Amino acid sequence: MVNNTVKKIVNGDVMTAAKLIRDIDDQVPETREILKALHGYTGKAYIIGVTGAPGVGKSTIVDQMVRDLRLNGKTVGILAVDPTSPFSGGAILGDRIRMQRHSLDKEVFIRSLATRGQFGGLTQSTLSAIDVLDAMGKEYIIVETVGVGQGEVDIARCVHTTVIVVVPGLGDHVQAIKAGIFEVGDIFVVNKADRPEAERAVTYLRSMIGLAKKEFKNEGWEPSIIMAEALNNKGIIELLNEIEKHRRSKKVGDILVAGKRDSARIQLTEMIKSRLIEETLNRITGSPEFEKYLDCIMERTKDPYTACDELLSAMVFGLSLDPCSAPNRTSNHPDEKD
Amino acid sequence: MVNNTVKKIVNGDVMTAAKLIRDIDDQVPETREILKALHGYTGKAYIIGVTGAPGVGKSTIVDQMVRDLRLNGKTVGILAVDPTSPFSGGAILGDRIRMQRHSLDKEVFIRSLATRGQFGGLTQSTLSAIDVLDAMGKEYIIVETVGVGQGEVDIARCVHTTVIVVVPGLGDHVQAIKAGIFEVGDIFVVNKADRPEAERAVTYLRSMIGLAKKEFKNEGWEPSIIMAEALNNKGIIELLNEIEKHRRSKKVGDILVAGKRDSARIQLTEMIKSRLIEETLNRITGSPEFEKYLDCIMERTKDPYTACDELLSAMVFGLSLDPCSAPNRTSNHPDEKD
Repeated sequence: MVNNTVKKIVNGDVMTAAKLIRDIDDQVPETREILKALHGYTGKAYIIGVTGAPGVGKSTIVDQMVRDLRLNGKTVGILAVDPTSPFSGGAILGDRIRMQRHSLDKEVFIRSLATRGQFGGLTQSTLSAIDVLDAMGKEYIIVETVGVGQGEVDIARCVHTTVIVVVPGLGDHVQAIKAGIFEVGDIFVVNKADRPEAERAVTYLRSMIGLAKKEFKNEGWEPSIIMAEALNNKGIIELLNEIEKHRRSKKVGDILVAGKRDSARIQLTEMIKSRLIEETLNRITGSPEFEKYLDCIMERTKDPYTACDELLSAMVFGLSLDPCSAPNRTSNHPDEKD
Repeated sequence: MVNNTVKKIVNGDVMTAAKLIRDIDDQVPETREILKALHGYTGKAYIIGVTGAPGVGKSTIVDQMVRDLRLNGKTVGILAVDPTSPFSGGAILGDRIRMQRHSLDKEVFIRSLATRGQFGGLTQSTLSAIDVLDAMGKEYIIVETVGVGQGEVDIARCVHTTVIVVVPGLGDHVQAIKAGIFEVGDIFVVNKADRPEAERAVTYLRSMIGLAKKEFKNEGWEPSIIMAEALNNKGIIELLNEIEKHRRSKKVGDILVAGKRDSARIQLTEMIKSRLIEETLNRITGSPEFEKYLDCIMERTKDPYTACDELLSAMVFGLSLDPCSAPNRTSNHPDEKD
């Protein structure tokens, strides 16, 4: 079964890849064996992250980039990551609308990820989905994210080139919602640059880049700012050229190797984290002991901090467990404790 | 030491409380013993969450609420949670600016949390900081959040009344960044209601509330919409009255008890999650074995999925570990595997 799936994906089978990505998004444990086997076919794609607040025109930019890459004969995979989609269904709807544009081009593969589980797992799902597109043989993979939250900063750190998109006039404080992500930007795009406040946006970006500089991931690279009007296809070729320039700069010296090790570190850490939470945390919170401790907390015979210590000791480190038997405080007044 | 700190906090000592909250924000492990001892003094405050995108006027609304609560002789604690602050320092700067307004009123205590660690922990820090303000004897605790990310949705589920703030004209797609949070809103405020698009915002909110309805946390409560102009102090008394109405509605039947158990569940789960990540994950990723596995992944003699399995087996479940000794694949072509 695993070998058959792997074979189909390596041969570019869209249905099989789509199903696997959906299973990854749903955090189906069985996907792990397939991903293990697929991993030998990865490592060839060039991965570009495109990040920005909702409404800055990310999809339009990505669509134009895809058009130009396709004109040059490149195969492209797109992952749209949207954990903030209101209620479920948003991402899938977006998929269907966007698929239409490239629906006749079988070398363009677009998928959305919406992982919004109780404990995240978004970074892990995205990195695994990138592996699938990579194994399919896509030469370029574009990962589109909203850029909020630590997970998306981690994704930006794992791609080869991170493009950050802003628009004039949306308000610095609104766009700053994705701050923290500035530090990982390689190329900045001011989209809708025909708007009156475009120059102000550039000034703002320059100051943010200056502030973030010491923390930039690639020391040898000076982040650049590109003016674009994606709807009119202005600035897209300049953006693709700049990405190519950044790609070449990374091959100098040991930067590429260091970057790869960083990505591997983030990916392995995220994987262990998901598994710890998925398996260990869910085992604890799904246990009858956990409910007993909740009873004790409700009766105020146990505080949650002590409950946490005791549950961890018992269920991770194998010590004995006896909830509520020994209330952890006898006095309620601090003076009596002195 | 612990007893002395507890005593000072229960007696309302601002310096001690401020230091403890800073230590909680920095995830200092020693805070746990103090929090255990403090827990016996908690459970009396009424906790209000105020959530909305940056720029909707949350701070102004909170400031006006505080003014009115103080006029009625109530003591108030404010927690401003901002994990998206660009680079470090943002939250602290915000603190100083906002402290000035109430600086002469020692019954108002304002603190910011900015936890932005590699693995979150924001929910955990916020819930612990709420415990500190509660133990200080604050009658009302207002928790201000940007409303992005699962962590903030969890916080909203833990407070007694969640107020969601929007403004007309910011654009639905921008405000939707905090969607998912709609489901946990008890009261919605349209701030800057003098703007021309206010009616449209109400229509949008009604549709979102309708969509979210089946998932609302309090089945017996119909979420209400309040028009406000916080800068002109319009709508604030209406908001406080509505919060009081919601507070009374929760005391009917078992809703309050069920809500408390839900909060306890989230708090205990978050605590276990932080500890698992803090202790177990950091122990794994800080180990020499982890680095060896990274070497293997770089050499492509091991895939990250297998590395994850092996590290977890060894370092959590005590099995033996031998990185890179047995490469997990011998063939790189799927046809050979069949």
